[in-house]
Amino acid sequence: MSALPQRVLIIGTGLIGTSIGMALTRAGVTVHLSDRDPGTAEEAQRCGGGVAEPPSHDPDVVIVAVPPASVARVAAEALRDWPSATVTDVCSVKAGPARELVATGADMSRWVGGHPMAGREVSGPAAARVELFDDRVWVIAPSESVARERVDSVVAIVEACGATALEMTADEHDRTVAVTSHVPQILSSVLAARLAEVDQDRIQVSGQGLRDMTRIAASDPDLWAGIIASNPSPIAEVLDEVLVELSRLRAALDSGDTGQVRDVIVRGNVGVEAIPGKHGGQSAPFDVVPVLIADEPGQLGEVFVAAGAAGFNLEDVRIEHVLGRPSGLVEVSVRAGLGDALADALRARGFDVRD
Amino acid sequence: MSALPQRVLIIGTGLIGTSIGMALTRAGVTVHLSDRDPGTAEEAQRCGGGVAEPPSHDPDVVIVAVPPASVARVAAEALRDWPSATVTDVCSVKAGPARELVATGADMSRWVGGHPMAGREVSGPAAARVELFDDRVWVIAPSESVARERVDSVVAIVEACGATALEMTADEHDRTVAVTSHVPQILSSVLAARLAEVDQDRIQVSGQGLRDMTRIAASDPDLWAGIIASNPSPIAEVLDEVLVELSRLRAALDSGDTGQVRDVIVRGNVGVEAIPGKHGGQSAPFDVVPVLIADEPGQLGEVFVAAGAAGFNLEDVRIEHVLGRPSGLVEVSVRAGLGDALADALRARGFDVRD
Repeated sequence: MSALPQRVLIIGTGLIGTSIGMALTRAGVTVHLSDRDPGTAEEAQRCGGGVAEPPSHDPDVVIVAVPPASVARVAAEALRDWPSATVTDVCSVKAGPARELVATGADMSRWVGGHPMAGREVSGPAAARVELFDDRVWVIAPSESVARERVDSVVAIVEACGATALEMTADEHDRTVAVTSHVPQILSSVLAARLAEVDQDRIQVSGQGLRDMTRIAASDPDLWAGIIASNPSPIAEVLDEVLVELSRLRAALDSGDTGQVRDVIVRGNVGVEAIPGKHGGQSAPFDVVPVLIADEPGQLGEVFVAAGAAGFNLEDVRIEHVLGRPSGLVEVSVRAGLGDALADALRARGFDVRD
Repeated sequence: MSALPQRVLIIGTGLIGTSIGMALTRAGVTVHLSDRDPGTAEEAQRCGGGVAEPPSHDPDVVIVAVPPASVARVAAEALRDWPSATVTDVCSVKAGPARELVATGADMSRWVGGHPMAGREVSGPAAARVELFDDRVWVIAPSESVARERVDSVVAIVEACGATALEMTADEHDRTVAVTSHVPQILSSVLAARLAEVDQDRIQVSGQGLRDMTRIAASDPDLWAGIIASNPSPIAEVLDEVLVELSRLRAALDSGDTGQVRDVIVRGNVGVEAIPGKHGGQSAPFDVVPVLIADEPGQLGEVFVAAGAAGFNLEDVRIEHVLGRPSGLVEVSVRAGLGDALADALRARGFDVRD
């Protein structure tokens, strides 16, 4: 493990830059803050993000936390202005900015791209939080020519912010977020857009599955249009695969080829198993115990208290609010193999456990 | 309101037929059970579903609860055998069986199609539950020529089973479930199938959105291939709309038309608002309060107990298990306007409320 850098310059003191400054200050790092609007840097200083003054000599690491469109230009300036510093960024796409940076003739042997998987719906230094990165994944995408100790110093910063560093190439990063984040957003929005055309009364037949599938369709249009526009090629590649698959299914519906429909669902079963579960481990097979509770204050809590008192740690919980009656079905999950014991324990405490 | 029918014949005593028999028996209805396998009907009788004997004269209502492929044939026989009875079914598609029934020359003036939105992963009379339909929506799709009192008698059966009747035409039903259930399943499976190709390490960048979007991709392949194959035209119609939309987005990525991407997300915002919220009302705007809890037995319960003690009724709860650390961020929802008060109440009780 490399030692934590002693002196860091953060350029761009919005939500992310200021939050990093607060976390590094907490960790004992000397943090210098800079923003093209001096008032914003001063506000970040007042929030505890560091000092709104330029460093007197080369910082160990410069963190470029400016909007995506300015990353390459500002990073090129930083690599030029501070000729011994390692430079990183926080942009949500990685390949495009790196390509632009190469085109400026920048010294790529000091470039370590970064992307903390964290954010808030609000922006600006006043919205910054010291715990913003706690328990989050922070992708590190070093250039090919960078020395190991420079990568390690960025990893040390990531860990001082409470996050977990995950190293991959810029292309791997962009392709991964296309599949795990950008295309899911597109599919959710396209599906939800269809609902606008369904009669309001009839949509009552919708269940939990539809609610799951459309939750992220409530996302901010400007933010997401920008994110999607910043990663066009990897998203297009995944969309092409989705289009081929859906067109095949469409044809299978016409020809009555049930086997093809089944095949897609089987491959989906395999894919969903690959998503990490709790604490970054493999997706654990949970037992699900359904409990019917009254829709009154405290009812839900009693289920959890009873489970906790009986020594069970609940892994997940889902509430399916039902129509027309003041009651709710709650599905609590425990580690596989413990479902029957939990059901017995809850029944013994008078709960209406369904099976 | 029509009086509850006094005498009902259920043909097909699997999970659904037997569960209906149990609920109607509980409501005081005389229930006759019939199955092509007499042993199954006898098992249903032992489970409390009714008597495994044919009625001595016309029942008021015949409920056809046989597999989808046999519905039209069995319903045509029932309409012929019991010339004064109202006949209904429980099939998950409505237009196809009704068309087949018309083709047999059956008396459609006594036909009221039905679809209870309930089920279990297991089948057979032993899996039947008297509460299977509690608080569920049960779609009623009457033929055009049926008298109102016959529809009302089926509604009375639905309500005696604890469900809420929702009336629409067969075509409206099939188009609605295509949008709200069948196409969501297809999109989830197609998305999840893409994950099988992502490197296991890199998939750690996935967040709650991906988990939401792929949850139903874990569904049973045989069951869902059958469901999708039974509703090909309405699904194909929705898939065509999805394909057009995705192809347009694909082109917009090439041309850099961010406005078009934004437009889809805006229309998705509108669509997601149309999904009914708790208790069948409009989607309520909840306030979400994030609380960081330790991953130990009982921790979750303490949050709920504290909220209940302070008089708050939690509307929803989501647990985001985080990577690498034994802690979890819990998002609890309360009715809009109460979020700040709940946050204050939880903080006052020592909880680590984030904002």
